Amino acid sequence: MQTKTPPENALKRKYPEQTVLVVTRGNDGRANVMAVGWVMIASSEPWMFALGIDDAAYTYELIRQKREFVVAFPSESMAKETLFAGTHHGHSLDKFAATGLQTQTGVLVKAPLLADAVANFECRLVCIVQPGDCPIVFGEVIAAHENRSPRVLCLYNWGSNYTLLGARKPRTGRLS
Amino acid sequence: MQTKTPPENALKRKYPEQTVLVVTRGNDGRANVMAVGWVMIASSEPWMFALGIDDAAYTYELIRQKREFVVAFPSESMAKETLFAGTHHGHSLDKFAATGLQTQTGVLVKAPLLADAVANFECRLVCIVQPGDCPIVFGEVIAAHENRSPRVLCLYNWGSNYTLLGARKPRTGRLS
Repeated sequence: MQTKTPPENALKRKYPEQTVLVVTRGNDGRANVMAVGWVMIASSEPWMFALGIDDAAYTYELIRQKREFVVAFPSESMAKETLFAGTHHGHSLDKFAATGLQTQTGVLVKAPLLADAVANFECRLVCIVQPGDCPIVFGEVIAAHENRSPRVLCLYNWGSNYTLLGARKPRTGRLS
Repeated sequence: MQTKTPPENALKRKYPEQTVLVVTRGNDGRANVMAVGWVMIASSEPWMFALGIDDAAYTYELIRQKREFVVAFPSESMAKETLFAGTHHGHSLDKFAATGLQTQTGVLVKAPLLADAVANFECRLVCIVQPGDCPIVFGEVIAAHENRSPRVLCLYNWGSNYTLLGARKPRTGRLS
């Protein structure tokens, strides 16, 4: 049974929400990282991601400048670093130095991979559209990398006060 | 440690993935429902959703025709119906009759709400863009509805053979 409510109330029921880290590198060589919850796959041939990136973010400036970035799926062990990346601005702060996030060199994009992530996708900017109040950035995957350990699992935003945790199948679920 | 791999392999690590049902109604009065995994929020003022909708889908035809639709977050009890909606075409099949999905009348959009969902969002079409091989549909939320029971939780696609189940916080997670 459905009850009418403001959208922001109904949206509180949509969690857990996938969270990614978007990694960029500026002309000064400094890498930056931002947490993004508005993310989805947008094409399969070629593979593309869509990302909602605040136009005030340093990440947005660097994506427009360099036209490339990395989408990393943080692992459960990266909760603290993901929260830091999502709640601090990168214009004048080195979030890699502040968090100690470990990096690895990609193959096609100058922004680094996140060594402890579940997976990393090197992306080239395709286009940016803005139907509402947030730019939507489309990136084509030009190289991909995964953590080969099946025990390394994705981190999710559980909604309440930025609770960042993994997700497990319920014990008594109804299998489709 | 990251190992280079084809994107489709790395993407197998991104689950669980949020799944929604998109509900439409045609000129003949018949409602249709489709499962969509490429979904995200795309604006907060006003609230908007972005959805990847296959251009061969009956849902895509009806969205372009009627310029309105409902985004429903299926509950854990709707796994079987969600799988059916996601694996059958609606052009000549009444998926509501086939699944027995219960509906409820919305306030602004002619497509019905799903009574047993976690939440429903009545949407008006804003625009469609196509950066890759799939049309990306943006819809503005013009009314929202929620299931008031906090025990009714969202359904996720766990990836392997369309396993549709809820998600639980891990018992031994590291709180951010």
